[in-house]
Amino acid sequence: MIFSEADRNLAEQLFAQVAAATAAPGGGVCRPSYGNNETIAWQIIAEAATDLGLYARGDLADNLVISRDPVPFRTDARSTCVGSHLDSVPHGGNYDGLAGVVAAVLLIAKSRELKIDVPLVGLGLRGEESAWFGVPYLGSKAILGKITWRDLERRRRITDDDTAGLALGSCLERLVLHPDRIVQTPITQPDQIREFWELHIEQGPVLVARGKPVGVVTGICGNARAPRAQITGRPGHSGTTPHDLRDDAVVRFAEIMTKLEARRRTLAERGDDLVFTCGIVGTNPQKHAITTIADEVNLALDVRSLDDRTAREFLTYAESLGVNLGEVVETPSAVIAPATWRRAQLACVSLGIDHMVMPSGAGHDAAMFQQSGVPSGMIFVRNDNGSHNPNEAMSTDDFLLGCEALWQTILDGNR
Amino acid sequence: MIFSEADRNLAEQLFAQVAAATAAPGGGVCRPSYGNNETIAWQIIAEAATDLGLYARGDLADNLVISRDPVPFRTDARSTCVGSHLDSVPHGGNYDGLAGVVAAVLLIAKSRELKIDVPLVGLGLRGEESAWFGVPYLGSKAILGKITWRDLERRRRITDDDTAGLALGSCLERLVLHPDRIVQTPITQPDQIREFWELHIEQGPVLVARGKPVGVVTGICGNARAPRAQITGRPGHSGTTPHDLRDDAVVRFAEIMTKLEARRRTLAERGDDLVFTCGIVGTNPQKHAITTIADEVNLALDVRSLDDRTAREFLTYAESLGVNLGEVVETPSAVIAPATWRRAQLACVSLGIDHMVMPSGAGHDAAMFQQSGVPSGMIFVRNDNGSHNPNEAMSTDDFLLGCEALWQTILDGNR
Repeated sequence: MIFSEADRNLAEQLFAQVAAATAAPGGGVCRPSYGNNETIAWQIIAEAATDLGLYARGDLADNLVISRDPVPFRTDARSTCVGSHLDSVPHGGNYDGLAGVVAAVLLIAKSRELKIDVPLVGLGLRGEESAWFGVPYLGSKAILGKITWRDLERRRRITDDDTAGLALGSCLERLVLHPDRIVQTPITQPDQIREFWELHIEQGPVLVARGKPVGVVTGICGNARAPRAQITGRPGHSGTTPHDLRDDAVVRFAEIMTKLEARRRTLAERGDDLVFTCGIVGTNPQKHAITTIADEVNLALDVRSLDDRTAREFLTYAESLGVNLGEVVETPSAVIAPATWRRAQLACVSLGIDHMVMPSGAGHDAAMFQQSGVPSGMIFVRNDNGSHNPNEAMSTDDFLLGCEALWQTILDGNR
Repeated sequence: MIFSEADRNLAEQLFAQVAAATAAPGGGVCRPSYGNNETIAWQIIAEAATDLGLYARGDLADNLVISRDPVPFRTDARSTCVGSHLDSVPHGGNYDGLAGVVAAVLLIAKSRELKIDVPLVGLGLRGEESAWFGVPYLGSKAILGKITWRDLERRRRITDDDTAGLALGSCLERLVLHPDRIVQTPITQPDQIREFWELHIEQGPVLVARGKPVGVVTGICGNARAPRAQITGRPGHSGTTPHDLRDDAVVRFAEIMTKLEARRRTLAERGDDLVFTCGIVGTNPQKHAITTIADEVNLALDVRSLDDRTAREFLTYAESLGVNLGEVVETPSAVIAPATWRRAQLACVSLGIDHMVMPSGAGHDAAMFQQSGVPSGMIFVRNDNGSHNPNEAMSTDDFLLGCEALWQTILDGNR
C-alpha cells in the first residue's frame, strides 16, 4: 500500500475544510453548480494542490485542472484524467463528488513524491448535479464539446446564493469566462485523453449490505422514464357501486404494480439487471374524495438498466398493462469496457482489497466521458446512509483502499 | 295500478318546474341546504300540494309538511311519514331527493282522491346533503331532536348563494325561525310516527345492471373510515438501491391493496356484504421525486357494510398489513326490520313489479329515523349514470312503479 498516515491526514483535513466552508444553514453542505460555494471548494482544493507542489488552474469552463507540470496536457503522451465533481445537491453530503477530487490530488501528489512518470491530469469538475440547472455533467460536457447555446440559457432552478436564477452563461461570465467559446467546442480533444477514471462514493446501500469497502463498476445504467404516466378508470360512489361494476383506477394501479414487480423478478432470475421505481403516484387532488371511486391515477416511472433495450421494453410492458405512458425520456447507458473494469478488478485482487463488481445505478461524469469516446472506469467506495443527504458516511480507511485500487489500476494501464 | 296518466303528467311537470327554477349555471341543479334554491323547491312543491287540495306548512326547522288535514298529525292514530329531501349537492342531479318528495305528494293526493283513510304525512326534508354544512340529515335530525348547539354553529362550506359562509343557526333565522327551539328537542315525538318510508333513486348502478326498475332496501350501510391513513417505507435513490434492499412505500401500498382485494373477495364468497374504496392516495408532494423511492404514501379508506363489525374488522385487517390508520371514523348502519322490507317485497310481488332486494350503500334520511326508533323502509328506483351529477336518468315509468310499490306497502302496513 502506498498511501501513508500523512495522506490520510491530508484527506481528512481537506474533507473537513471544504465541509466547514460550504456548510448549508439547514444541515449538510451546499455547493451549487457554478455558484459561490462550488468556487470556494475549488479554491481550497487548488491551494492544497499548490501547497503539495502541484499546479492548479481553471479551464474555459472553470473546471479545476491539477497537474505535476505547469502545462497539464503533455504533447508526447496522452494523459489519464482522474477526478470527479466539486458541486453538491442542496443540503447534500460532503463526499459525493469531493471524494474523487481529493483522490485525484492524492494520486498526482503521490506520483510526484514517488517520481513515477505517469501522465496524470486531475479534474475537479463543475456542475455535475442536475438539481441546479436541470441537466447534469455541465463541466465534463464542456471539456468534451457538448455544451449547447440552449445549455447556456438554462437558469438556476434552486435559489441558494447570489447566483440564484442566473443563466449558466451569466454564471460563467461572473467567473470572467467567455461562455461562447465552449459551445460545441471541446476544451480538450477526446483523443488527447487516454482514459478517464473516477472514484466516487457508492450512492446506494449495496457495498454496506455486502460488507465490501470497494466496488468495481461495470457500467453506468441508462434509464427510460415516463414522468407523467396515467392509469384511468371510471368514477363512482364508494357506497353504491358494487365491486363487480367498478373500474377503480387505484385498484388497477395496485394490480399493475404487482405485475411489474413479478416481471422484474423474472428478469432478475434470468440475469437481466433492472430496477424500476414509481416514486410519484397520486389520485387527482382536483376531484378525488374519500367517497369517490377514483377514475385517474397519475404516476412517474423510472426504469434503469445497463441494457437500454431492457429498460425500454419494461416501459412497453407497463403500457401493455394499461398505463398511458405519456412522454418517454430515455438516457442511454454507458457500458465500461470489460478490459477496463477487469483491470480494476485485478488491481483489487493483487492488493488483497475486498471488493465486488457492480453496475452504477446513478449517473456520473464518467458516463459523459465514456459516451464521448474516452475509455472510462469507476471505483466505488462504501458509504452508509445513501447519498444526496447530510448523513453520507464514508470511512477514511475505505477511501484510502479505493485510492490504492485506483492508483494500481492507472499504473497497470500505463505500463 | 292506481297511478294514472294525470299523475304521470303531474310528476313530470313538478320535476321539470323544480329543475328549471334551481338550475346551476355550470349544469345540473343546485339546491343548497337551507339556501335559497332549496326554499324555491319547497315553494313549488307546497303550491302543487295546495292546488291538489292538500295542506302544506313548514315545521320548526322549515321541513315541508304535507297533509290531507290542516293539522298534519292526528291524535287518534299514529301517522305514516313518507318523503325525502329537497336539497341537492352542488351541480347535482334533479331526482336525488326530489323523487321521494314528489312521490309523497302523489300518494297523499291519491289517498284523498280515493278517500282511503290512511294517516299520511308527507315530508320535504331540508339539509340532507353533507356537502354544505359537513354533516348530513339536518332536517330529519331536527324532527327527531338530534340537532346540537354545535350543529347550529356549523358554517356553509361551499359558496353558491347569499347564504354562503353563514352558520346553520343564521340560515334558520333568515327563514324567521328560532333555531334555539330545535336544539335537542324533537319537533315530532318518534312514537307519534308509525313508520317512515322513503322512495329514492338508486345512486349506484345495480338496478340498471340487473335490469330491475325497483329495489327493496334491507338496510343502510354504515361505514368505517380512515380519512388520513399512511403507509411508510424507507427513502432511497431509484438508481442505486437494489430491490432486495428497498422498503418502497408505493410497492407496499400495491401489495396491501392486493391483499385487501383478496380479503374482500373471500368475504363476498362467504356472503358478507362489504365494499371498500381507496379514493385518495398519493406520495408526499413535499418530497416525492421520480428518482426517489417513496418513504410515505398517504391514503383514505372507506369501508361499508350492513354489519358494522365487518366494516370495522376490515380496517383492523388493513392495520395488520401495515397501514397506520390514524383517526378512524365510524357511522353505524341502519338495519331495516325484515318484517318491514318483506312487506315491500310482497307488495312488489302482488303487483307484479320486477324488483330486487338490496342494501343501500349510501346514507339516507331513513337511517336517521330508523336509528331514532322509528321503523323505516326504503324503495329504490332505477337510475342511470349514478347520482350527485347532472346526468341522473330516472324514467317516469320506473318512478310510477316505485310509487305503486310504496303505496301498496303503506296500505298493507295500515290494515
